[in-house]
Amino acid sequence: MNKLLFSFDLIAKDGQARAGVFHTPHGDLPTPVFAPVGTQATVKAVTPAQLEEIGVALVLANTYHLYLRPGADVVAELGGLHSFMQWPHPILTDSGGFQVFSLEQMRKIDEDGVTFKSHIDGSVHRFTPEKSIEIQQNLGADIIMAFDECAPPYDRTYSEHAMQRTHQWAERCLQAKIRQDQALFGIVQGGVFPDLRQKSAEFLTSLDFPGYAIGGLSVGETKAEMHAMLEIVNAILPQNKPRYLMGVGTPEDLINGIQRGVDIFDCVLPTRLARHSAAMTVSGRLNLLNAAYARDPQPIDPDCQCYTCRHFSRAYLRHLISAKEMLAATLISIHNIFTLEELVRQARQAILEQRYSAFAANFLHQYHSSKATTASTPERTL
Amino acid sequence: MNKLLFSFDLIAKDGQARAGVFHTPHGDLPTPVFAPVGTQATVKAVTPAQLEEIGVALVLANTYHLYLRPGADVVAELGGLHSFMQWPHPILTDSGGFQVFSLEQMRKIDEDGVTFKSHIDGSVHRFTPEKSIEIQQNLGADIIMAFDECAPPYDRTYSEHAMQRTHQWAERCLQAKIRQDQALFGIVQGGVFPDLRQKSAEFLTSLDFPGYAIGGLSVGETKAEMHAMLEIVNAILPQNKPRYLMGVGTPEDLINGIQRGVDIFDCVLPTRLARHSAAMTVSGRLNLLNAAYARDPQPIDPDCQCYTCRHFSRAYLRHLISAKEMLAATLISIHNIFTLEELVRQARQAILEQRYSAFAANFLHQYHSSKATTASTPERTL
Repeated sequence: MNKLLFSFDLIAKDGQARAGVFHTPHGDLPTPVFAPVGTQATVKAVTPAQLEEIGVALVLANTYHLYLRPGADVVAELGGLHSFMQWPHPILTDSGGFQVFSLEQMRKIDEDGVTFKSHIDGSVHRFTPEKSIEIQQNLGADIIMAFDECAPPYDRTYSEHAMQRTHQWAERCLQAKIRQDQALFGIVQGGVFPDLRQKSAEFLTSLDFPGYAIGGLSVGETKAEMHAMLEIVNAILPQNKPRYLMGVGTPEDLINGIQRGVDIFDCVLPTRLARHSAAMTVSGRLNLLNAAYARDPQPIDPDCQCYTCRHFSRAYLRHLISAKEMLAATLISIHNIFTLEELVRQARQAILEQRYSAFAANFLHQYHSSKATTASTPERTL
Repeated sequence: MNKLLFSFDLIAKDGQARAGVFHTPHGDLPTPVFAPVGTQATVKAVTPAQLEEIGVALVLANTYHLYLRPGADVVAELGGLHSFMQWPHPILTDSGGFQVFSLEQMRKIDEDGVTFKSHIDGSVHRFTPEKSIEIQQNLGADIIMAFDECAPPYDRTYSEHAMQRTHQWAERCLQAKIRQDQALFGIVQGGVFPDLRQKSAEFLTSLDFPGYAIGGLSVGETKAEMHAMLEIVNAILPQNKPRYLMGVGTPEDLINGIQRGVDIFDCVLPTRLARHSAAMTVSGRLNLLNAAYARDPQPIDPDCQCYTCRHFSRAYLRHLISAKEMLAATLISIHNIFTLEELVRQARQAILEQRYSAFAANFLHQYHSSKATTASTPERTL
């Protein structure tokens, strides 16, 4: 890891909440930051120009998907992910582990790696820590992830075994990594077990990664458990490295995560919800297919400054959804991503002004008092 | 019709090709002009901001579709089409006739109008000339169309009958129209029969519409027949009114239409082809799903200045198509519409510089000598 290319400046701290800047070869990431997900090298239904207009700073892409299609060698031949998907700003790739371990019926784990069948054509493939790094080096993201095993949250025996495997694999990933222009993050596992999380955070900290991910959360555990794990882990992880909570993206999870010292988030939620007619707002979700919106001239959120809210009525969006028009997904995705980016921008400002506790309390009060808020569900799937 | 709101300035003529400006309440239309189709009040997969960036001046919307969903009353209540779909520039609506007569099994025609079943839910509806105008007045486009019957091109008896009905309906549409901020165009019919086309053009000219559409072409006749009909009709239609060739949009049809005095075109072709992986270029079509493009770093057209060609490789577009990503339709639609707009802009410039014949000949030579050009097929469907 080239320390000159990647460094983290902790600018302000307010309680455990942090405002910083993570320097990468493709530009500076102000943190906290939320990354929309470009699973197959595209944030679904949104152009890079629209992402820039929204103010997106970081995009995540999926190693498993891009390995299968178009192939990491193809992406490399076309100049790497930044060139391929025309996102000139920072990119993060996951290790492929989460997707492969989600295949259930189609994979076989051993200490060396995982053999799995493609969900596209059933062909057999094998990921090892070394293979994951090789693929991620071909893809060429700024931030890459160690190959890890994400266990079901409540099985202690499995969690402990998966954690140990994750630790061994983290060391192998460090060994395998060659490129100097990529920052490899280690991933803390350990399910919902405080002692395992502590052990995992301590072990990975000893390996001196340029940043740390917290995996295995938002996979079915309670909010209280998620918060407890974040508090344990972030008390151990070094202050001078960024912390990335993987796969988390409800407004309340962002606010609670930032409050507990998280710097980076990603989630498919804003774009997935958009494709299912749901608009995210800071006072809950709107199902835009609801007949109540058929003649509603208001934007999704009258206070929102996104392209969609500056132009289009709920009635128009409902019409697009009813008529199965692709533009619905585009416009609602733009709004949903903007909502999360704006929330994180406001959170950062509150930290800089040392008023994060009040900001978070006020936000959570408003969010929970709204009837529109739907129950939180796990947001990551294959 | 308010002559102050709608007037046509014929700026230059080169042979029969014309460059003009049609003034409308929502801005000036430089002609020749190509209008992409926003069937359901959206040009599929493209935002209004992207259309503006492409340089689109005019958008068409479909009366039949918007009558059924969301309903013309809903559009009116939301401020009309310009406000509803957030297209502040000129809009044209068709009469609903073409779609209704395309329903075949689901419609019954009489002298007064057409009774038909909705393709959405089978419910029974009736369009008359008066009803079409009422709906189009609710939708609020700048340019609206008389209710006409488009006959199959080769049935003389049917064509003559349909033409006579179209003429009677044109008079009823003129009577029914109230709004002063809409220009009602009459539609010339008559199949592939020179005498019928002549009769139709003469009759409609006598009614003094602010503009004229030429219907019933690009519905299965030969190119030679289309050209012959255009020549007959445009020799009769008044020079000081714009002429609109409905549903036509291959590059060669645009060039040939302009050469024969057409000012306005519309077609679903650029967006429909885009959704089926086909990129339009001035030297023919590319099927971007072709394996030959899997590692091709070139843009669709190295000479094209559209957003898509300035950024994305054929390899990336092929990946998006293979992965069934919505962004493929967006990016290829942007390119295809841009290609037609740019072609028409160049044609206008050539007319202004009195070199249209050479421009057209050169274009058609290049277009026909390319292997990539696919056979021309009818481009309008329900």
